[in-house]
Amino acid sequence: MATQERPFDLLNKAIGRQVMIRLKNGIDIRGKVTSFDAHMNIVLDSAEEVDDGNLKSKLGTILLRGGNILFISPA
Amino acid sequence: MATQERPFDLLNKAIGRQVMIRLKNGIDIRGKVTSFDAHMNIVLDSAEEVDDGNLKSKLGTILLRGGNILFISPA
Amino acid sequence: MATQERPFDLLNKAIGRQVMIRLKNGIDIRGKVTSFDAHMNIVLDSAEEVDDGNLKSKLGTILLRGGNILFISPA
Amino acid sequence: MATQERPFDLLNKAIGRQVMIRLKNGIDIRGKVTSFDAHMNIVLDSAEEVDDGNLKSKLGTILLRGGNILFISPA
Amino acid sequence: MATQERPFDLLNKAIGRQVMIRLKNGIDIRGKVTSFDAHMNIVLDSAEEVDDGNLKSKLGTILLRGGNILFISPA
Amino acid sequence: MATQERPFDLLNKAIGRQVMIRLKNGIDIRGKVTSFDAHMNIVLDSAEEVDDGNLKSKLGTILLRGGNILFISPA
Amino acid sequence: MATQERPFDLLNKAIGRQVMIRLKNGIDIRGKVTSFDAHMNIVLDSAEEVDDGNLKSKLGTILLRGGNILFISPA
Repeated sequence: MATQERPFDLLNKAIGRQVMIRLKNGIDIRGKVTSFDAHMNIVLDSAEEVDDGNLKSKLGTILLRGGNILFISPA
Repeated sequence: MATQERPFDLLNKAIGRQVMIRLKNGIDIRGKVTSFDAHMNIVLDSAEEVDDGNLKSKLGTILLRGGNILFISPA
Repeated sequence: MATQERPFDLLNKAIGRQVMIRLKNGIDIRGKVTSFDAHMNIVLDSAEEVDDGNLKSKLGTILLRGGNILFISPA
Repeated sequence: MATQERPFDLLNKAIGRQVMIRLKNGIDIRGKVTSFDAHMNIVLDSAEEVDDGNLKSKLGTILLRGGNILFISPA
Repeated sequence: MATQERPFDLLNKAIGRQVMIRLKNGIDIRGKVTSFDAHMNIVLDSAEEVDDGNLKSKLGTILLRGGNILFISPA
Repeated sequence: MATQERPFDLLNKAIGRQVMIRLKNGIDIRGKVTSFDAHMNIVLDSAEEVDDGNLKSKLGTILLRGGNILFISPA
Repeated sequence: MATQERPFDLLNKAIGRQVMIRLKNGIDIRGKVTSFDAHMNIVLDSAEEVDDGNLKSKLGTILLRGGNILFISPA
């Protein structure tokens, strides 16, 4: 591709930092990125399900399958 | 294929510019393209969810998974 | 395969011409084909969303992901 | 596979002939096969959407994406 | 894999014989297997749509896309 | 991967034995495993559709497409 | 990818330990990981379906297809 920067650079920079992930099913997950792979599978520490910005439930460490992701946003 | 210009050329020209992206779930996202890859994963700066052209929520920088996209339009 | 003509020939001939595209979600998009690729990703100029043949909204230039397409018809 | 005849032979024999195609979304399309490829993408001439065997709308020539097909039947 | 017999052997033995195919959408199709391929695309002769074991409609010869199949049962 | 035992070992051990398979659509199928392949396509003998543990209908021998499976459990 | 740790490391460390798996269909499964593969197919021992943290049904040993998983969390 013709871009020098690439989408996964955003994930690289997010290692050790907080992100907000919107899933395809409309659920928002917040947490600190520990690792990711080429399928966008992501491990989050201190993950939380949030609803309109409010904490809904604490999930702890999770491995999220990339295929469920709509978008990822650095917090 | 037999065309000289190719669909991804549109994304190349959109780098640094505003686009409107309609998602499969009917949501419209507006933002400035920073990078993209062959899966149409796209990083948008100053992304916003819009509803009938009106701002619904500010998303900041997002990495959007290409598989969720219906179409992309330069603003 | 055993056919000499192939489905993508229809898209080749459609370059620079008007097509009507029915999407899987039932929406009809009309526009002039600028380019396409092997995934049936298509760039349309002067694209319009139409409803029962009537203009619903103008979309301008769009890059449509092939996976959303039900069928394409030269106008 | 152990069969000598193969499913795509049915499509080969259908070139230049009328078929009825049932789509996954329940819609029936009738038309004359012009070409097809290994993804079961099919070009139909004089295509028509039919409902319980009755003409619902004329579609003209269409390129139908194979992934939408439930089954194809020679008319 | 560690099995000597393999699932497609069932289809091989079904050539020229009656099968019942349940589709993902809940519809049952009955017919005589003529050919199949590695995607489980299957050609059936004298195919019929059945509802609770009763004939609903005669489909004749059909090429059924494998991706729509839930299971296949020799009649 | 770093595990010595692998998920398909469970299927290997299930050959000739009874399993319960929950499908993505919520249906439970019970039967004796005859063979399987790398796509998790499975042939079951004396297959039965069960509802809350009660027999709903006898299916006989079936070839089940792996893509429909939620989980498999040795009975 | 640029991370040294990788998502599947979480699964490796989970071998022999309890995890909670949320499925795409909203169901939660709890169990002890025995093995997994690159598709995230996972074998769980003493698996249980849980609803809001309460036991709903005992599933015993199951082979869960990876494609159904939303996320996995070490208990």
